[in-house]
Amino acid sequence: MAGELAFIARLRDLAGHPAARGLNDDCAVLEVGSETLILTHDALAQGVHYLASQDMADVAWRLVATNLSDLAAKGAQPLGVLIGYTLGRDDDRFLDGLGEALRHYDVPLLGGDTITAQGPRTLGLTAIGRATHRPVPSRGGAQTGDGVWITGAVGAAMIGLEALQSGEHDPALSLPYRRPDALLAKGQALAPLVTAMMDVSDGLLLDAHRIGTASDVTLAIDSTDVPLAAPEHRRDEALRWGDDYQLLFTLPEDVQPPVTAYRIGKVLARQGAPLMLDGRLLADADHLGWQHEG
Amino acid sequence: MAGELAFIARLRDLAGHPAARGLNDDCAVLEVGSETLILTHDALAQGVHYLASQDMADVAWRLVATNLSDLAAKGAQPLGVLIGYTLGRDDDRFLDGLGEALRHYDVPLLGGDTITAQGPRTLGLTAIGRATHRPVPSRGGAQTGDGVWITGAVGAAMIGLEALQSGEHDPALSLPYRRPDALLAKGQALAPLVTAMMDVSDGLLLDAHRIGTASDVTLAIDSTDVPLAAPEHRRDEALRWGDDYQLLFTLPEDVQPPVTAYRIGKVLARQGAPLMLDGRLLADADHLGWQHEG
Repeated sequence: MAGELAFIARLRDLAGHPAARGLNDDCAVLEVGSETLILTHDALAQGVHYLASQDMADVAWRLVATNLSDLAAKGAQPLGVLIGYTLGRDDDRFLDGLGEALRHYDVPLLGGDTITAQGPRTLGLTAIGRATHRPVPSRGGAQTGDGVWITGAVGAAMIGLEALQSGEHDPALSLPYRRPDALLAKGQALAPLVTAMMDVSDGLLLDAHRIGTASDVTLAIDSTDVPLAAPEHRRDEALRWGDDYQLLFTLPEDVQPPVTAYRIGKVLARQGAPLMLDGRLLADADHLGWQHEG
Repeated sequence: MAGELAFIARLRDLAGHPAARGLNDDCAVLEVGSETLILTHDALAQGVHYLASQDMADVAWRLVATNLSDLAAKGAQPLGVLIGYTLGRDDDRFLDGLGEALRHYDVPLLGGDTITAQGPRTLGLTAIGRATHRPVPSRGGAQTGDGVWITGAVGAAMIGLEALQSGEHDPALSLPYRRPDALLAKGQALAPLVTAMMDVSDGLLLDAHRIGTASDVTLAIDSTDVPLAAPEHRRDEALRWGDDYQLLFTLPEDVQPPVTAYRIGKVLARQGAPLMLDGRLLADADHLGWQHEG
């Protein structure tokens, strides 16, 4: 992980354009003429981000949904995707899942590149959207006194991955991991109201820590208020598990969310750390979620 | 290759949006508000598109330049790039080369994804540009009677790769392969005048065949008129070698190119094949260039 953080620090030096948002956001926000474009690129590596044995239709869905989830956190309307595909096992299943996801989200495939390579595959996808509301939500706008909200339960993907790894035959149990949902409509409804927003891809606590850091405030979260899609004794794990793709956002105290959402805490003036869990400050981002260690 | 062609045929079924241009072009051309965006994504696989032993600074340059070359063929002005990077050997050298290329082309890094993966790496880059002239040049507009032109010599990358593989110590000899140039200014100057244009990435003959196919005409090329950056006895190879990234275009008979370029043939009404070389029709695209066999 040290290598990745050092790499990203140097990459940040190359990303001085305001559209890059200092690489501190999940998307680039680029003004072009009268439009504001939202751009994101995510890659999935076999054996790291998906199981080598997984149904490639599910991998395709995941590749689409994780990128569209980044657009959702910006309140963006998707315009299309470009795919970077490496041929290999079950290409037809990949195409099945890609088609299902694109139809589900009504997003066109615009182009990309198909290559042959050696070894485990890396698959990439770029999603392009347009902002439906400006300013575009960021991680950096949470204000003291705001409420902290989440659109739904965490832990479903954790349970889903375990079901998949155990060879569980009921596909419904692994569905939340295999086919995450990008909350595009919720993101668009929330964008005009939120002070900060992101999608929970790396763990609720880690992502809350990131909003607190970017906004220079402290997010105080009550763990028992977080809706759970896992057994109660696994609450601590579920708070640190990613892949649920709920939207985490902050709202002024007097604003109610226009979509189903759960209030899980409050924004405090900056204390000694960007995150407080059940009254305890958590300064160190380690052990709060998935930090791309590979 | 059969697998790749079958895959792309099915992918094309998913790319019905007009912006995708039927996946028959190197870029997507997307109307957004009053702007026309040009979008492209290319991937480089270690051991396939670059040598495992290569200087990663050169690989970074190549990743940037090949994508910007696609924009050049559309007469586009680059707005930025997103990178899909897999950590590995010589990440610092990669960043050196990435910085050099971005500064050289004055293109901002907007975002992307940095991951850890196993085995040989696949690196991806998405470039976004805006059209400087509409309609945006395509492969499909060549007209009977047009001249066929190329911006410069072919064969330099072939000689450069051989120098690199032989361990040649004069870096100037391998430079055309290691650091291809994206002809952005030439592309922008040509875009208002050309009837068809593309960049020569896969071999002059193969790419001319593609323009002939897309335009439903026959490009008649005189091989001796093609400027050569290789020994004369290797002319046939150089005509089939990619990686030179010259612009290949067609112009009405009475139009002179506003930039240095070489006339190498003429567009004929469709004969029995999309390409004629020295009076001989070449129907089969095999053996005309690099068809991504891996």
